[in-house]
Amino acid sequence: MSMVPHGGDLAAAEARWGRPAKGWLDLSTGINPVPYPVPPIDPAAWQRLPQHDRLRALLQTARSCYAAPADAPIVAAPGTQILIQLLPRLRPGARVAILGPTYGEHAACWAAEGARVTIVGSLEEAAAAEVVVLVNPNNPDGRIVRVERLLASAGDLAARGGLLVVDEAFAEVTPEVSIAAEAGRPGLLILRSFGKFFGLAGIRLGFALGAAAEVERLARWLGPWAVPGPAIEIGIAALSNRGWQNETRARLAADAERLTALLLAHGFAYRGGTALFRLVEHPEAARVWDRLGRAGILVRPFPDRPALLRFGLPADEAGFARLAAALG
Amino acid sequence: MSMVPHGGDLAAAEARWGRPAKGWLDLSTGINPVPYPVPPIDPAAWQRLPQHDRLRALLQTARSCYAAPADAPIVAAPGTQILIQLLPRLRPGARVAILGPTYGEHAACWAAEGARVTIVGSLEEAAAAEVVVLVNPNNPDGRIVRVERLLASAGDLAARGGLLVVDEAFAEVTPEVSIAAEAGRPGLLILRSFGKFFGLAGIRLGFALGAAAEVERLARWLGPWAVPGPAIEIGIAALSNRGWQNETRARLAADAERLTALLLAHGFAYRGGTALFRLVEHPEAARVWDRLGRAGILVRPFPDRPALLRFGLPADEAGFARLAAALG
Repeated sequence: MSMVPHGGDLAAAEARWGRPAKGWLDLSTGINPVPYPVPPIDPAAWQRLPQHDRLRALLQTARSCYAAPADAPIVAAPGTQILIQLLPRLRPGARVAILGPTYGEHAACWAAEGARVTIVGSLEEAAAAEVVVLVNPNNPDGRIVRVERLLASAGDLAARGGLLVVDEAFAEVTPEVSIAAEAGRPGLLILRSFGKFFGLAGIRLGFALGAAAEVERLARWLGPWAVPGPAIEIGIAALSNRGWQNETRARLAADAERLTALLLAHGFAYRGGTALFRLVEHPEAARVWDRLGRAGILVRPFPDRPALLRFGLPADEAGFARLAAALG
Repeated sequence: MSMVPHGGDLAAAEARWGRPAKGWLDLSTGINPVPYPVPPIDPAAWQRLPQHDRLRALLQTARSCYAAPADAPIVAAPGTQILIQLLPRLRPGARVAILGPTYGEHAACWAAEGARVTIVGSLEEAAAAEVVVLVNPNNPDGRIVRVERLLASAGDLAARGGLLVVDEAFAEVTPEVSIAAEAGRPGLLILRSFGKFFGLAGIRLGFALGAAAEVERLARWLGPWAVPGPAIEIGIAALSNRGWQNETRARLAADAERLTALLLAHGFAYRGGTALFRLVEHPEAARVWDRLGRAGILVRPFPDRPALLRFGLPADEAGFARLAAALG
């Protein structure tokens, strides 16, 4: 089991507060609470080994959805997490700078494989590193590093055999932030997550795009059938459905604004976020967290920054009303 | 993409023979063609991150189904293949003896990670190895190495820091062959596959059982959410359904006997197998393979042993009739 704290563990919440009568309102993740509707799944997708032609179709659909070049090297994995676990093998023992604070698994996975990890506050502080990792837009604070700055950094790193890892786990809500159109450049590796924007985190589907040197190694380490047949079919359907994606982007943006307004009205200060989550500060954040937990509402605390909380989006009116009542 | 030849790639078959009017009768794998019926899946299993308490329930169900000790270290993975990809990291650069001929990915994965791989014909020939790998019962010839012999080998290997890997991908049809009751002994690592016996290869679910030293490292490399939520739920349902398992064992045994009789009646010699596949020899095997392919029936050839073919089981009367007609 990972030692990194995460949202979304309802069993742990029940161990603390008991099972709420109304069920959990889980706002502890950055997962879209209104998922892409899972289409009927051809029984063959469950029964057969995943088919290579369908996997190729998934990869082509992903390139197109992410506006990556049509020939960009890309690999699919059963979740982005397993790609994060594999990244340290691309540069064993490297000096790694991670733009923090951010998603904790990056530092944990590099350190577990013997890398020398430093958490830095800006790309400028990462000048001595062989590998630079950032989440863009960042989790939890929504910090955005612009594409031109990333390209300069990737170029610098490539010139000395290094690597810039850009984790775009939340980039669907702000596609203009994405560097996926540059996928294939040496020194640049991009991670994309399916589950968050499409609201299907249980499916486990993620992608890495980059130069052939890195992507082919990741693909070889994952082996020939790493992505389940149903995940391939659901991925093709969802990644090609631009209508749903556009509507969802608009809905998430509106709901995120509404969430911010609600939190500001209850004494929180806005500290950043994306349309999938809001990071807020409160002088009594720990007490608010506990009060919400006792009301069956799970939000994300940060043990080393106790004044902060991260709120995901409620799915609907009832969710907003329940949150408002519990905050009141 | 893997360079190891495998069954089950229908797109490759269509590139060669075109799409058959009646659809493919795919007998090229060892997957049960009558799958465990996929139960209705709670939408939460798709939407949420896989829950640790459900994963623990899956692991406990698997231990019980495999008759492993209740406290045996065990890890679940998205398919056994990805475990095979990870095994070389347990003993980097080791001298590895693989009991062959067998499933090609074992040798390929160890060799790709820099191990010194020898294919041996018996455990006696493996005396100098640090790691010994066998599939038991073996694919494709059904060879069985008895538990006592395996325990002696694991003990020898453990005494010098080595490892015996027993891939029980097809052991459900002959549970008496399994060494899972010994899981936890040092020097012994057991792989179990969900997809073959349960007929759900698309789901991607496999397990490794063994000593904590090895299992904990595999779990760390896979990360916290390697198995999709739906796979966890389907796995719990199927692995705990002893009635379905017993009926399936009996049906597979009967169908395998019937398949053998059909093949013997058409000039094949029986060379081994399990109840999930039959290995047969024919002086004109390459021509038979091509004739079957043109008739829309896919079976498994062996490029380096051209007189052999491996047949999986037809699902039903229509499948047996179609195979009989094409062989006639």
